[in-house]
Amino acid sequence: MDWCDNQKRLILVMVLMVREEVLWVHRFFIPELGSGPIIEITGDQQKHIEKVLRLKAGERIIGFDGSGRDYVIILQGLLKNRLQGEIESWHRNDREPTLEVHLVQGLAKGDKMDTIIQKTVELGVKSVYPLKSRYSVVRLEEETRSDNKIKRWQKTVIEACKQSGRSIIPSVHPALDLDQILAIKARRPGIMLYEKERTSSFRDKLQGKKDEILEQGVFLLIGPEGGFSREEMEQARKAGIETAGLGPRILRTETAAIIAVGITMYEFDQLV
Amino acid sequence: MDWCDNQKRLILVMVLMVREEVLWVHRFFIPELGSGPIIEITGDQQKHIEKVLRLKAGERIIGFDGSGRDYVIILQGLLKNRLQGEIESWHRNDREPTLEVHLVQGLAKGDKMDTIIQKTVELGVKSVYPLKSRYSVVRLEEETRSDNKIKRWQKTVIEACKQSGRSIIPSVHPALDLDQILAIKARRPGIMLYEKERTSSFRDKLQGKKDEILEQGVFLLIGPEGGFSREEMEQARKAGIETAGLGPRILRTETAAIIAVGITMYEFDQLV
Repeated sequence: MDWCDNQKRLILVMVLMVREEVLWVHRFFIPELGSGPIIEITGDQQKHIEKVLRLKAGERIIGFDGSGRDYVIILQGLLKNRLQGEIESWHRNDREPTLEVHLVQGLAKGDKMDTIIQKTVELGVKSVYPLKSRYSVVRLEEETRSDNKIKRWQKTVIEACKQSGRSIIPSVHPALDLDQILAIKARRPGIMLYEKERTSSFRDKLQGKKDEILEQGVFLLIGPEGGFSREEMEQARKAGIETAGLGPRILRTETAAIIAVGITMYEFDQLV
Repeated sequence: MDWCDNQKRLILVMVLMVREEVLWVHRFFIPELGSGPIIEITGDQQKHIEKVLRLKAGERIIGFDGSGRDYVIILQGLLKNRLQGEIESWHRNDREPTLEVHLVQGLAKGDKMDTIIQKTVELGVKSVYPLKSRYSVVRLEEETRSDNKIKRWQKTVIEACKQSGRSIIPSVHPALDLDQILAIKARRPGIMLYEKERTSSFRDKLQGKKDEILEQGVFLLIGPEGGFSREEMEQARKAGIETAGLGPRILRTETAAIIAVGITMYEFDQLV
């Protein structure tokens, strides 16, 4: 009977994989995956599997280690209080966008950064650079908890990857100054969403640099609640960044970030 | 000196209006505006003006009543504990989109509906129809607080209008069944974002009905956390609604709603 149940589950997993719906099986981020057939699951994930999902030995989960693959893992049981599993098979995860979108986000208040990170990771962002912007209400360097904040953001990234089905973990960088961001961007394309920009549209800028963006990716710069200062805008322009508006309605910083990433993905056929 | 200050403020208001940046002056939703030159400001708005902003007689605010105009109001002072003001001038607000986008949103948990309403109002949505969907975790009719919920959503709408600079108040309807929504939609274009739809893209659907959408607007249907059921999808299709996907990454319901409205506005040049 047990054997029969297991066979049924295996068939289900295979059917799901063939239909590219592996997501409906539980997904776990396991950093050290792939080094051997036997893996260990510890900490919160172990608790989640044992206490919340109540999965038993013989049941299957999907693991990913950030390399772009998904692994089917058969749970084996506890060894010295650690949950063991065996890698049964792997397959290439094809949910990653082919376009590299880097979000430079002016530090925003409260849980707005978490919202922005969660949503833009779902949409396929490659990396997030929090920016110490002139009008940022938040001053990350003044907070003793800045390390904790980055850890929390990284956790948000992993949760968003699990949920959206991504298998490559986007990076969240420590907060940087505009100078530092511009040095990292170097000669790659960049667009600053500048609310006082009324003459040039985001579409024109995206389409105008189509080939460069496809080849080198794009940096999208979003201001904090207070927007960018004129000096920041001018500094960015000098570094080759173009400015664009998002229309007559004033968008909150988190709306602007989500929409800018979403529209870029849409414009470059990454939402199909 | 007082006179001089007032003149300076008036010039500032005029300059701001000429530069279409009236937003930087405080905006208030005053439903009974425009019936005469003298208006009364009561309740929370009065408190906000007196206690938070500490504006005095002679200072100016912007009022809007949902008709599509913005009014410059000079504060006059208290009469029987109510704040009085006089309408000085009005101008047409040109921040409204010319495209009518109606969002049909499967009832979602917690404060997700508030997030969706806030963001899609910023983006220019015309109306929001909460939908009692098969897989909705929330059952609004079972809650004694459903009236309160709608009131809260309407407050969110007004706040988002104030913040984004809109002067027409989008409507939030009571939660309806799919049957009722389809009857309201009638023959107007509709697109259901259906995550199992892998063959037809949102762009194809938007561009395929370009003329009808421009003329009649569009209904966008977004499922709750659990997505739409197959039966709902089939029922919608029978009513002439097309289905489209938003790509390989699984988006949360609130991300899908924000992105669907944002992309529709983008595709129809409403974000320029």
